[in-house]
This record gives sequence, C-alpha cells and structure tokens, in this order.
Amino acid sequence: MTLTIGVDVGGTKILGGVVDADGKVLVKARQNTPVEGGLALLTAIATVVNELASKAKVESVGLSIAGFVSSDRSTMLASPNIAGLDGLPLQKPLEDAIKLPVRVENDANAAAWGEAIFGAGRGCGHLILLTIGTGIGGGIITNGELNRGAFGVAGEFGHLRMVPNGLRCGCGSYGCLEQYASGKALLRTAKERAQANLADASRLLSLGDGTPEGIHGSHITQAALAGDEVALSAFREIGDWLGAGIAMLSMVLDPERVIIGGGVIEASEILLAPTRSALLRHLPYATKHPIAKVVPAELGIEAGLVGAADLARR
Amino acid sequence: MTLTIGVDVGGTKILGGVVDADGKVLVKARQNTPVEGGLALLTAIATVVNELASKAKVESVGLSIAGFVSSDRSTMLASPNIAGLDGLPLQKPLEDAIKLPVRVENDANAAAWGEAIFGAGRGCGHLILLTIGTGIGGGIITNGELNRGAFGVAGEFGHLRMVPNGLRCGCGSYGCLEQYASGKALLRTAKERAQANLADASRLLSLGDGTPEGIHGSHITQAALAGDEVALSAFREIGDWLGAGIAMLSMVLDPERVIIGGGVIEASEILLAPTRSALLRHLPYATKHPIAKVVPAELGIEAGLVGAADLARR
Amino acid sequence: MTLTIGVDVGGTKILGGVVDADGKVLVKARQNTPVEGGLALLTAIATVVNELASKAKVESVGLSIAGFVSSDRSTMLASPNIAGLDGLPLQKPLEDAIKLPVRVENDANAAAWGEAIFGAGRGCGHLILLTIGTGIGGGIITNGELNRGAFGVAGEFGHLRMVPNGLRCGCGSYGCLEQYASGKALLRTAKERAQANLADASRLLSLGDGTPEGIHGSHITQAALAGDEVALSAFREIGDWLGAGIAMLSMVLDPERVIIGGGVIEASEILLAPTRSALLRHLPYATKHPIAKVVPAELGIEAGLVGAADLARR
Amino acid sequence: MTLTIGVDVGGTKILGGVVDADGKVLVKARQNTPVEGGLALLTAIATVVNELASKAKVESVGLSIAGFVSSDRSTMLASPNIAGLDGLPLQKPLEDAIKLPVRVENDANAAAWGEAIFGAGRGCGHLILLTIGTGIGGGIITNGELNRGAFGVAGEFGHLRMVPNGLRCGCGSYGCLEQYASGKALLRTAKERAQANLADASRLLSLGDGTPEGIHGSHITQAALAGDEVALSAFREIGDWLGAGIAMLSMVLDPERVIIGGGVIEASEILLAPTRSALLRHLPYATKHPIAKVVPAELGIEAGLVGAADLARR
Repeated sequence: MTLTIGVDVGGTKILGGVVDADGKVLVKARQNTPVEGGLALLTAIATVVNELASKAKVESVGLSIAGFVSSDRSTMLASPNIAGLDGLPLQKPLEDAIKLPVRVENDANAAAWGEAIFGAGRGCGHLILLTIGTGIGGGIITNGELNRGAFGVAGEFGHLRMVPNGLRCGCGSYGCLEQYASGKALLRTAKERAQANLADASRLLSLGDGTPEGIHGSHITQAALAGDEVALSAFREIGDWLGAGIAMLSMVLDPERVIIGGGVIEASEILLAPTRSALLRHLPYATKHPIAKVVPAELGIEAGLVGAADLARR
Repeated sequence: MTLTIGVDVGGTKILGGVVDADGKVLVKARQNTPVEGGLALLTAIATVVNELASKAKVESVGLSIAGFVSSDRSTMLASPNIAGLDGLPLQKPLEDAIKLPVRVENDANAAAWGEAIFGAGRGCGHLILLTIGTGIGGGIITNGELNRGAFGVAGEFGHLRMVPNGLRCGCGSYGCLEQYASGKALLRTAKERAQANLADASRLLSLGDGTPEGIHGSHITQAALAGDEVALSAFREIGDWLGAGIAMLSMVLDPERVIIGGGVIEASEILLAPTRSALLRHLPYATKHPIAKVVPAELGIEAGLVGAADLARR
Repeated sequence: MTLTIGVDVGGTKILGGVVDADGKVLVKARQNTPVEGGLALLTAIATVVNELASKAKVESVGLSIAGFVSSDRSTMLASPNIAGLDGLPLQKPLEDAIKLPVRVENDANAAAWGEAIFGAGRGCGHLILLTIGTGIGGGIITNGELNRGAFGVAGEFGHLRMVPNGLRCGCGSYGCLEQYASGKALLRTAKERAQANLADASRLLSLGDGTPEGIHGSHITQAALAGDEVALSAFREIGDWLGAGIAMLSMVLDPERVIIGGGVIEASEILLAPTRSALLRHLPYATKHPIAKVVPAELGIEAGLVGAADLARR
Repeated sequence: MTLTIGVDVGGTKILGGVVDADGKVLVKARQNTPVEGGLALLTAIATVVNELASKAKVESVGLSIAGFVSSDRSTMLASPNIAGLDGLPLQKPLEDAIKLPVRVENDANAAAWGEAIFGAGRGCGHLILLTIGTGIGGGIITNGELNRGAFGVAGEFGHLRMVPNGLRCGCGSYGCLEQYASGKALLRTAKERAQANLADASRLLSLGDGTPEGIHGSHITQAALAGDEVALSAFREIGDWLGAGIAMLSMVLDPERVIIGGGVIEASEILLAPTRSALLRHLPYATKHPIAKVVPAELGIEAGLVGAADLARR
C-alpha cells in the first residue's frame, strides 16, 4: 500500500505526517514556523519531510498552506497570515531539497478534500467546507473534484460581503463575512457583551482574569458549554451571520453538505444550531429550494495534512 | 453531421430551432406560451418540436426553461415566472409525445453552456454567466463542465444578499441582487430619478408618454446611448450593484470570465464600464487577486436554445 | 373653569370631546371619516364640534390630524393616510363654520403634548413620543414646549433611515423605521415566521382562520401574551429596530423620557423589554451617555384629542 | 458696552478672546493644551483668561469645549478627544481662580450659538450646525434657543447610525456617521482610492511624499480645488453620506437651515454640492417636505469662542 506525506504549514507550527490510502496518519513530525519565512521556512518544511521520509517509504508530498496558491500550484501568490511567503516559489525548491514530487494546496482546499474523502463529506459529490478559525477559509468539491477556480483561488468564503460599507477587513474591502462570523468576531462580540453586562458574564469572566479584555477564545466555548448567557449569545450572533453566508453559498453552489471546521467548531451544536436556523430563515425560496445539511468536520486539525497527503497521491 | 433541436420556453413565447454541431440555427419555429401551463404547455412545446422535426432529421431535443429543474432533470421543481409549471414532469410526457430523447435544463444554465461552447466563453474552462432581464439568472461552467450543484439548482446569482434587511424579493427573502441590478431595478431607478428631476430627464421622458410612469425599459437604453444623464445614472447604479455581486462571485468561484447576457446587455459598455469599475473597487485583495474579465454575451436571445440543443447532443 | 374641544381626525373616524383644564374628557361625539375628504370632511368635523358645543360652553377647538400641517397651522400640506386632505385649508373654513377659534395640530404632536401635560410625560421638560400604529408618528417636547421645527413638520421619526437601500417606504425613500418597527412590520414579520414554522405558530394561527395570511395585528399581541413563541419573536424583532431608532433619537434630542403610544403598545412590556435592551446595546457611549427612560403612553387613543384640546387653550 | 471672554479648549491649543456684543473679537490669547489634563488644564485656561482680563474689563467667561457637559454645565461628563477631562469639575475651580462667572458649553453647541447670533444662522429660529473636523459634532437651535436636551448632550449628530453593523466607532457602536462623513473618513477614502488608482491620483499624491500613506487632509481639499478626480470623488463620497444624515435630521428636527462648519468646509461647494444633492435624493416625501438650506459656516475657527462668549453674556 502506497504511503504519502502531508504537511500542514500554519502560522505557528509545521505539522507533517505519513498517511496511508485510508487517510490514517501513521507517524508525525513537527517544527515551529520560522518567523522570517523564505528560505528558513523551506528548510523547516524540508526538515519535517526528511524526518518522516526516514521512517517510511513514501511516494510524494502534499503541502497544505494558508494563502493564494498559483494556478500551476508551484508558488504562493499571497499569504496574509504567514510571513515571508508572498511570491515564494515552493514546489521546485522543495522537490530539489527532498527528492520527492511535491504538490502545494491551499489549506482549506486540502481540508475540504480530506473531509470529502475520509471525513464528514464521504460519498458526497457536491460539498463546501468552511473553516472557522481566527479568519474564515473555504473549499469546494464539485462533482467529486476539488474546485480551484480559474486562477486557483476559489472558495474564499470569508470575503463574502455581508454588510455594504460594513466593518473594514484585512483584505482591503468592507463588510466581509470574516469580520462577523470568525473566531475573531466571536471574541470581539463576547468582549463587548461582557463589558455591557458584567453581571450576566460572571461565569465567562471567571475563566480569565475577570475583565472583558482578559477573555480568550477558548473561554467562550467553555463558558457556553456551561450555560453562560453572554457566551451563548455571542455564538448565536456569529451563527446567525454564518447561516446568512451559507444561504448565499447555497444559492451559488447548491451543495448537498456544508462542513464546518476550524477551532470554533469545538462548540459543535452551540454554533451549529443557530447557524442552521439562520440558514433556513435567510434561504431564498426556502420552501422550494433543497436545503444543504450543515455538519461538523470530522478530521479536526489533521484535515489539511490528510487532505494534502491524499491529493499528493493522485 | 448530427442535428438537434433546442427549445427555449419563456414567459410569453416558446422558441425552437434546429441546431447543427457548430451552434448554427438552421430553421426556427415558435408558439405563444399558454397561460394555463400544464398540459397546454406540453402540447405547445410538442407542436414546436414536431414542426421542426418535420423539416430536418434530428437526434434529440434540449429544453431551456426558467426555474428549478430536478436534479435528474425530468421535472420542474418550481418556476417563478411561468404559470402552471411547479412540480410538472416534463421529460417523460414530452418524450412520449415527440418520440425523441429530451433533456431539460434551466435556461441560464443552457445559455451559459451555449456561450461557453459557441460564444463569449469559448476556450474558457471556468466561467459564469449572468442574464440580466426582468430578473437575474446565472450559470456556472467549472472545469469545462456545466456545474448544476447537488440538487440541480446552482447558479442562482439573482439571490445573493446584497443588503441585509433590504428590499423584499419575490423569493421571500430580503436584499437580493435581483432587486438592485435587474432590468426591473433599472426601470424603478430610472423612474424615481426622472420623477425627482424632470428637467434632466427630458430626453428619457420624451421617448414615452412624457411621464416617469410611462418609461419603458427599452427607453432607458435608448436614452442612455443618446447621452441622457438620468438614464446613464440609472445604469451606473445597477452596474455598481452588479460589480459588487460579481466581486462576491469571484471570491467564491474564481472564474476567468464573467459573461453578461439578457436584455439589459443591449446597453453594452454603458452597463459594463460601471460594472467593471465596481468589481475593482469591491474585490477583496484587489491588488493580489486575479481579476475576471467581464464581457458581453455573444449569442443574444438564442443562447438558451443553442445551449440546450448542444447539451441534448451529449 | 374653561372648557375646550379636542377633535381627533383619523382615517376611519372623527372623535371629538369636551375637555377640561385637567385633561378630563367630559362628553364625546363621533362621525365616520368621509372617504371623499374635502368639503365632506370639513362638514363632518363641524358636525362633531357643533354637537359638543351645544352641550357645553367652550372657548376654542383643537384639531389633531395625521399629516404635515403648514407652519402657520392653517392648512394641510400633505396627509398620506386620509384622502382628500392634501393642500386643504382647515382653520379658516372651520372657524367660519363653527364660530370658534380653531387650532390645527399634527396628531402625534398633539398626543405628545397630551402625554406631556396629563400623561406619561408629566414634569418632564424634554421628551419624545413615538406612536406605533400602522405607521409610526412622533412628537417632541423641548424645554417644556412643543417642538414643531421650522416648517411645522419636526418629529417624523417613522422616516429615520434604518437600512441604506432597505425596504421601500410609502414616503418614496428606502429603509425607513416605519418599515421595520410599525404595526405593519409586526404583522409582516409574524406572517413570515408563522409561514416558515407553522407548528410553532399554532397558537397564533388558531386565533384567525388557521393560515398565516389570516393573522391580524390584534392576534399577535394576544398570542404573545399567551406565550406564543412566533408572536414573541415578532415583537422582539420590532423592539430591536425600535430600540436602535431610539438610540439615534437619544443622540440627536437627548430626551429624559421616551413615551411609546399607539395600538401596538397594548403589548406593553412584551414590546418595551426588547426595545430597552436594544437601546442599551445600540446607544453610542453607552456607559457614559445618560439613558432615557422608555415608558408606555398613559392616555391611550384619547391622547391626540386631549392634547389638541389643551393646545387650543393656550 | 459690555465685554465677555470666550475660550475654546481644543485638543492641541486653548484659544481665548475678548468679544464685544457684536461678536467681534477685540484681543486674543493662547496656550497649548497640556497633555496631562486635570489641574494643568485648569491652570492653562486660567492663564489665558487672566491675560485677557488684564487687557479689558470683562463681565464673564464662556468656555467652549469638546465633550459631554453635565446638564448643570459645571462638569465634564466625558471628553473623547481631550486627555484628563472625564469627570473633571470645571466651573467652580475656574471661577475660584479667575474671580469671574464661568459658563461651560459643548464646543459644537457654542459654535451653533455663535453662527445663530452672528454668522450663517442670523434670523433663523430653527437651525442645526454640523462641524466636520476629525470627528463630527453638532448643535441645535430650537425656537431661537440653544437646545441642549435633558442631560445637556443633545446634538451628537456624529453618532447617527448610517449602517447597521457598519464601521466600528470610537463610541463603542457601529456604523456612526462620523466613520463615513468626517475628515477622518475623507482621508481614509482618499488614501484607498489613490492606492487603487495611482495614476488618476497623481496630482493628489504630488502634494505629499508621493505615496497614498503620505496624503494629509489639507492635500485633499487642495487637490480637489485643482480638479483632481480622486480627491473630488472622495468629497462626493462623504458628501453623499452627509446628505443622507442631514435627511434624517430634517425628518427629526425640521430645521430651516443646516450650517456646515469645521475644517473640511474649506472645500466649500466641493463638499456642499454633493451634500445637497444627496439630501434631495434621500429626503422622505421629497416633493412635499420643505427642504432646509445647507450653507457653509461663516465664523470659521472662532465660532466656538464667539458663541461661548455670547452665551456667557446671557
């Protein structure tokens, strides 16, 4: 049985694994992401790959990485969250360094592929994945194939315009979904509501230093699971925006399934219930249009790694 | 060379044609669309087909029709603009009546296919089409294939939510693109601006009965081509919304080309120039994201017929 | 003790009363509002006044009437809801007919005055009144005086723009508060939510003919008081918009009290609780800006009549 | 003829003047605003007053200062733009220090009064003033009197909500007019448009260091006066928002005149023309509602000082 390596390059760490044809991760390796990017980043990736390649006979390497990947998948066009990546060629220098075929893929695309083949999207020809982390990423499976678009940058769901002249986004535009439904938006909302209502937020505040500014993202999920009203209302708020965004994506892409991944999905139904309710409320032709199922991702933080490894096999 | 028949079923007329493998329409036939729908509609379609089939040896029939087509393409799920079509089986009764294989397709999908194969989208693997008529329809070509989505209803671009809590749409939702950038929106905008500024609209008003209420859609294009400021400002307004919508679609689908069809495109650059300008202004990561070309459709009102005929060949 | 007559001219009936200096209505009379407006309307008003004047010695007459009253208060500039009133002189023909001094006032202004002197606004120098009926009217008391503005048409709170490019309003603009927080908006919202969720709305639907279309405004209040979730959610929705509107009015006018009148206030705290909560959430500088008290009107449907009678005394 | 002193306390300097009953400034004095606020600020104000009082026999002192002034006008409730002012008593300590009666007034209120008595509002009983500087302030004259509202904080026009869920404002709310129509908004808009279109902005860019980031507010006015298209379009954008805001204020306050002051008004008609056009376009009942005149302020940067001095006389 052939093995491949998947490597997920994130803002803080590089996580690699040897993956079999069933999507099982047999062995792992990791490095910190060098802040200087460029050559140091290539070296760190090669170190992870070489360590793994020394432990198993592998055929190829798939890279999952945040940012716009060129349509020939050789080069990073832009990467908003990882330093020193804009315009960096990845495929050729890595292939030279590690003597294996390398395939580069956007991280949300890789995760969508991983979920489609081994996770929450099995058996489903048309699906979309939204990863709700600090920002929002997206991937599309169309007719069972990864849909990269013409220039390799399809699926940027975080930049749907939810509000004309709305909140300014890091992308230079205004009103993007990422500003209303991401982990960052969840945190901002929770802080504001705690500030406005310190008494109701006592449980949430007790998880940090007692002040709204001391709230961390993980506190909100924890407090919501324990029934904290402010934390729950913050999840309802971002679920409402998320459902409105998914309603738009349903009109455009008509997926059978919508998979929600990323760190924020740890809250599971606390996020999904208001999301589904908003989808129903906002869906055009709601009584006639088939409604996509909104489900949690199954592969967790390994989705990108596993997906990239499988793409490298094809 | 094999021939097929394409039939475009619209709200007022049924237009059929015998089409060759180069997309050329060799002979045409037409009937009025019966207002009672149902059996009368099936009969009228069969009449058009039989008339054409008597004049040329054809292999199959493609139907282009507004509304949601079931994913097996046998039945109309819903058709907002044609009476008596909701839930109507089309494929089987027509095949029984005309003794030829029948393929049913959403009209904007058929038009997108027609443009992709024979028109403004030749040679382009990833494109979208927006038809700007009374409402707004859409079609998607992904990797050279028609992208129907999981339930056959992808590409409903007219129902992107442009404005939260915005104008009420016939679909039951609020703020849909169709309410801001369709021919109907163009007409509403022109009437309002003429009413607010009768003097500036004198040329536009002179084409009708002299009152804002007497303005017709065709007058606006005509007046705009003649330099009427009110008509031009109405086109700028809908072009601005259209560009903002296309910016969203670019983030989701990343097309290489965006084809604008439908009656309103007769205004050509008067509509396209503000549309392109708005796309640039609203596109996230504008300096890094590849920008789709926005071009006019080439096949005119025959796009659906020609596309359906070609789909019937496959 | 001097007595005056107050007459409230509504869309369906003309209600008059003899009012004493304590705001007490001593005797009443009524007529239907003639649909043809004009002279018929003047005659009907005179009939009401003459009937009352025959029963008590009165000094003057105050008219409370929906619409824009000219700044000299002699003429109706426009009246969206009563036929045959646009441009109609009122003061002079009525004074000729009834031989008493007549003072014409916008109905919401008259109600605001009534509440300020005899009702929920006693002792308060700066207040605003919003009447939530089919539409939304408003009145302003500034430094203890009725604030009519320069042209007599201040206080049109129903036309605050809540949503740019939002719902079209009868006034010709888009996104007006009246489209989101009036009785009409409450009814639309309740119908939509009942349609989307027939099971949850069973109690609400049972008050009418069982269908969403059969819901009347009074059913929503009744069902909400009985705990119907769809009815309650409709009140929360319009309360949210109302609170956002009051937040704006607080920034502009800085009232001490905000009085909510009109038919919809029968729901009392069911409307006021979400309104106050939204006011807090939307108020700029929420922790530093003094917050107006939001209270229900006290004079009910006689507020306009009583206010107009008192204004006629001054 | 009695003389009074007016002192305008701004974020960078304290400007005082001896003013006669005709609003003429006879002699001036100034100090820098101490960054530590508190006692240092009181001392600096007293220094300015004492210097002026040594040169002319004055009766009283009026202070014009940005922020919320308590309703008894003795204390600053909050001052977003001047350090060390929140909760600071002003009237008593200053009266103790300078042995003259002191009256404290919000700066935009003072400016509105100044314009009403000596400037663009002469003879007008109902007017509003908007000062468009870094932020947006406002003042209201009702029936010839300064309208402070119940708590002294009326006229905060900069915090009208223009966009639900819009740009975050320093006040803690979202979508405030100040984020769309202030000098800060003008600068942001000009920078963005220059960035998007370096060629068209060449004249604007040439006034600074050649980069969009190097654009200063004064460059935009200068470039616009010279016909620079990017600068003009930035003014059109903020004028459009300003007109929409004034349309709301017209519905609420029904002023006869709207006076635009602040640094941005140096652009005069370049700002006022699009503002008036937007007011017409956005005004509810546009054909029936009287339309306020939008005019530039006449007193320039001395409006607050002159207004405060005159208020101190009363």
